[in-house]
Amino acid sequence: MTEKELEAYLHHKIPLARAMGAAVVEALHGGGITLRAPLTLNHNHLGTAFGGSLNALATLAAYAMLWFELGEPEAHLVIAESSMAFLRPVREDLTAICASPKPETLARFREEFARKGKARIRVEAVLEEEGMRAARFRGTFVAIR
Amino acid sequence: MTEKELEAYLHHKIPLARAMGAAVVEALHGGGITLRAPLTLNHNHLGTAFGGSLNALATLAAYAMLWFELGEPEAHLVIAESSMAFLRPVREDLTAICASPKPETLARFREEFARKGKARIRVEAVLEEEGMRAARFRGTFVAIR
Repeated sequence: MTEKELEAYLHHKIPLARAMGAAVVEALHGGGITLRAPLTLNHNHLGTAFGGSLNALATLAAYAMLWFELGEPEAHLVIAESSMAFLRPVREDLTAICASPKPETLARFREEFARKGKARIRVEAVLEEEGMRAARFRGTFVAIR
Repeated sequence: MTEKELEAYLHHKIPLARAMGAAVVEALHGGGITLRAPLTLNHNHLGTAFGGSLNALATLAAYAMLWFELGEPEAHLVIAESSMAFLRPVREDLTAICASPKPETLARFREEFARKGKARIRVEAVLEEEGMRAARFRGTFVAIR
């Protein structure tokens, strides 16, 4: 799956991704996913990035990373819980980076999914601006057959 | 401030609120804020509510409640951290309800803001469907003069 195919999939399946202007900047197996969205569509009352947009972009990055890395077409992937820490205001376009899990974490997840038809994985994403962390997202996702 | 004025303010200040179709259903002093958004603009790849939309609607409900209850025009209100628990899928339009804090909590927040020019408050919102809790949002907001 190329970056453009992944972006088209996100926009087709999740209308908010299109409304936010979420773009897939980079998708690398083992190297994570980077999404970007323009501040013009995602600012708040203070002209900085809206917390709900930062959370939505991080959630999209996590879904995109899991679809990209797992390639389990029969798995229904849902989010079970998430947390965000907002460290500093974002004054430019929003960038969310979701790292790929370690190979052993992915292998354990796949093995559990194959055995039980259900598996759980924790992922982490960061919102960055000019190389500095602006927010941190942690999410637990569940795959169900 | 009426429901319609609050809705216009949200749509004007936060483009994502308009893109999601967020509507203010009810705003009651001491009785909380109810927002709604259509599933058609906020579904995910499974046809249920997207987790990022549920979080964004809850965040909007929390901001709206705080603006509505505080009426501190010189306060810059920002979110410091949040957490979400997704309890069951939402299959219809999204409804977020943010309760008003207890009067003593609001009084303490106002007093701290007046004294220090900075104050912190925790709020909770629920996403409901047919009277059942579908998700729970907790957020910490900071007001700065």
